[in-house]
Amino acid sequence: MRATVLHAPYDVRLEQAPDPKLEGAGDAVVRVLASCVCGSDLWPYRGDPPVREPRRMGHEFVGVVEEVGDDVSAVRVGDLVVAPFLWSDGTCEYCVRGLQTSCRHGGGYGGRDRAGRLVDGGQGEAVRVPEADGTLVPVPRSPQDVDARLLASLLTLSDVMGTGHHAALAAGVGQGSTVAVVGDGAVGLCGVLAARRLGASRIVAMSRHTSRQEVARRLGATDVVEERGEEGARAVAELLGGIGADCVLECVGSGASMQQALATVRDGGGVGYVGVPHDVELPVRELFRRNVSVGGGVAPTRAYLPELLADVLAGRIDPSPVFDVEMPLDDVAEAYRAMHERRAIKVLLRP
Amino acid sequence: MRATVLHAPYDVRLEQAPDPKLEGAGDAVVRVLASCVCGSDLWPYRGDPPVREPRRMGHEFVGVVEEVGDDVSAVRVGDLVVAPFLWSDGTCEYCVRGLQTSCRHGGGYGGRDRAGRLVDGGQGEAVRVPEADGTLVPVPRSPQDVDARLLASLLTLSDVMGTGHHAALAAGVGQGSTVAVVGDGAVGLCGVLAARRLGASRIVAMSRHTSRQEVARRLGATDVVEERGEEGARAVAELLGGIGADCVLECVGSGASMQQALATVRDGGGVGYVGVPHDVELPVRELFRRNVSVGGGVAPTRAYLPELLADVLAGRIDPSPVFDVEMPLDDVAEAYRAMHERRAIKVLLRP
Repeated sequence: MRATVLHAPYDVRLEQAPDPKLEGAGDAVVRVLASCVCGSDLWPYRGDPPVREPRRMGHEFVGVVEEVGDDVSAVRVGDLVVAPFLWSDGTCEYCVRGLQTSCRHGGGYGGRDRAGRLVDGGQGEAVRVPEADGTLVPVPRSPQDVDARLLASLLTLSDVMGTGHHAALAAGVGQGSTVAVVGDGAVGLCGVLAARRLGASRIVAMSRHTSRQEVARRLGATDVVEERGEEGARAVAELLGGIGADCVLECVGSGASMQQALATVRDGGGVGYVGVPHDVELPVRELFRRNVSVGGGVAPTRAYLPELLADVLAGRIDPSPVFDVEMPLDDVAEAYRAMHERRAIKVLLRP
Repeated sequence: MRATVLHAPYDVRLEQAPDPKLEGAGDAVVRVLASCVCGSDLWPYRGDPPVREPRRMGHEFVGVVEEVGDDVSAVRVGDLVVAPFLWSDGTCEYCVRGLQTSCRHGGGYGGRDRAGRLVDGGQGEAVRVPEADGTLVPVPRSPQDVDARLLASLLTLSDVMGTGHHAALAAGVGQGSTVAVVGDGAVGLCGVLAARRLGASRIVAMSRHTSRQEVARRLGATDVVEERGEEGARAVAELLGGIGADCVLECVGSGASMQQALATVRDGGGVGYVGVPHDVELPVRELFRRNVSVGGGVAPTRAYLPELLADVLAGRIDPSPVFDVEMPLDDVAEAYRAMHERRAIKVLLRP
């Protein structure tokens, strides 16, 4: 099959790879209908961390189950499934608490399963998924009945929609909250939608890009602030009646974005952060004095999939606009470039 | 009147000071029935921060209203009142949200009011309280009907009981939570009681001192762990079925105690911290990977006073055992020594 491999910074290629087959009784093989490039893929693409050996890429995909091992009972051949961006056994102390990202036997696509065998990346034609019962979520639809928009929405549940939801929960968003969102990538935009879904009364998207502002408004942003730094924080406070936002979603992961979040949240508010932290420092005495809480982390999208999927299928949420570009898998290198250069918010890839 | 003044490290004295009188229309003068020494008083007592000029001490007291200014309507002469450890106007954007510690016009005892006038400390015979309406909480009891135990319980509502409650809320304690408490001072012990009150199913007090362990058990600790560091974290996990505590209350404020808290909380859990941070660093990548949230800060005890007071008066909680020593105000220097040397958990002072 064809699969995406990162060889060196800015050198990503579609190559021939062995067709996946069942290796363990808990495996499933999934034929990929759609996958995509993640903001977090751009870090190794840019050489952080450095690429030491060729690496299979991609961790978000929707597909059809092609084969299942003897122990698999939660999904069947022919099922349409969403794969969360990590696999997990579904039974350990953390999985039963809804924190599948800390699963005792879990792992990431492109990595190794517990027997040490390579697990395919999502940016390919097919994927062997370990711990299929604990990982895959079946969609009660025939693959034939899924149009492009629904497919895109389902694909967001793999990562960005669940991650935006995690940021909103971690920031404490509830009925009537005022919210600011730092970061206008797909996760930030999904954070806007998640905040609306949780009942936020005001949602300020912090964005300088017209096209992204437009998507933010479609997904529920009531206001947009273009300024950054202290000026941006002041602009948010002015919109919200003089004090900062109750909740800030930090959806980037840089030191500057965390500073923006802390400047924008009101005393006693919460910052939910979901971008892998790079050069982030938490100023503990300021947090203490201002009673600002900080929560978040790697989003357990598996835990959120059932409720978010129900809302997608019922038409209550439509996160599909975060995909503004679609390409064939053959153009994966261009997909990375487009996202790296911020020409695309998020690129959907079809094998 | 007599009042406590810190002159230099380890040099605290009871001295003559001007009798407080009304200075503004929002003031009340309160005759102190009981005050106490706080763990946070020990920092300047030990010279951190250095004592630059003589400083009036004490910020926790219960007393009787002696005089009120023309604008005061929430308390009357003769009322028994609890003073939270900061004063606040009760009307600003933060006060109305229950975060009186960020009050636009608030401040601390021993400091200056908004007109720049000295405000008495609590460790004295009387205190002029600015913003009396927003600050003082009347107790529906005649001062004559308050026995020593109730007086001690009321005094904890000034600071330590509300602070322990804040730690528990910030850590996310709820029905059925497993909880570990780092710090066996009065705040930590109140944290145990607060966790029990909020419905925790298991409460592990981390303490090496027999007398404090005893108080912890009286207040609701189901288990005690004497070990520290990784060993202590393992001991807690063993008690709790193999993983760390859902919620950890960090009630010290040192780098070591925060490390203990982070080692003891389970992935996906919450740390609530209420000790003024000294040399504390928050390891953001670890927090992110493990989805550990960190919240807390200066406790808005004013916000919690009504509900905690109701529980004290109804006998549902009795935090009085955190006062293990009582002294006359004349012995305030010895009270500081006893707490500094950890001979006392918390000393109650009677003028």
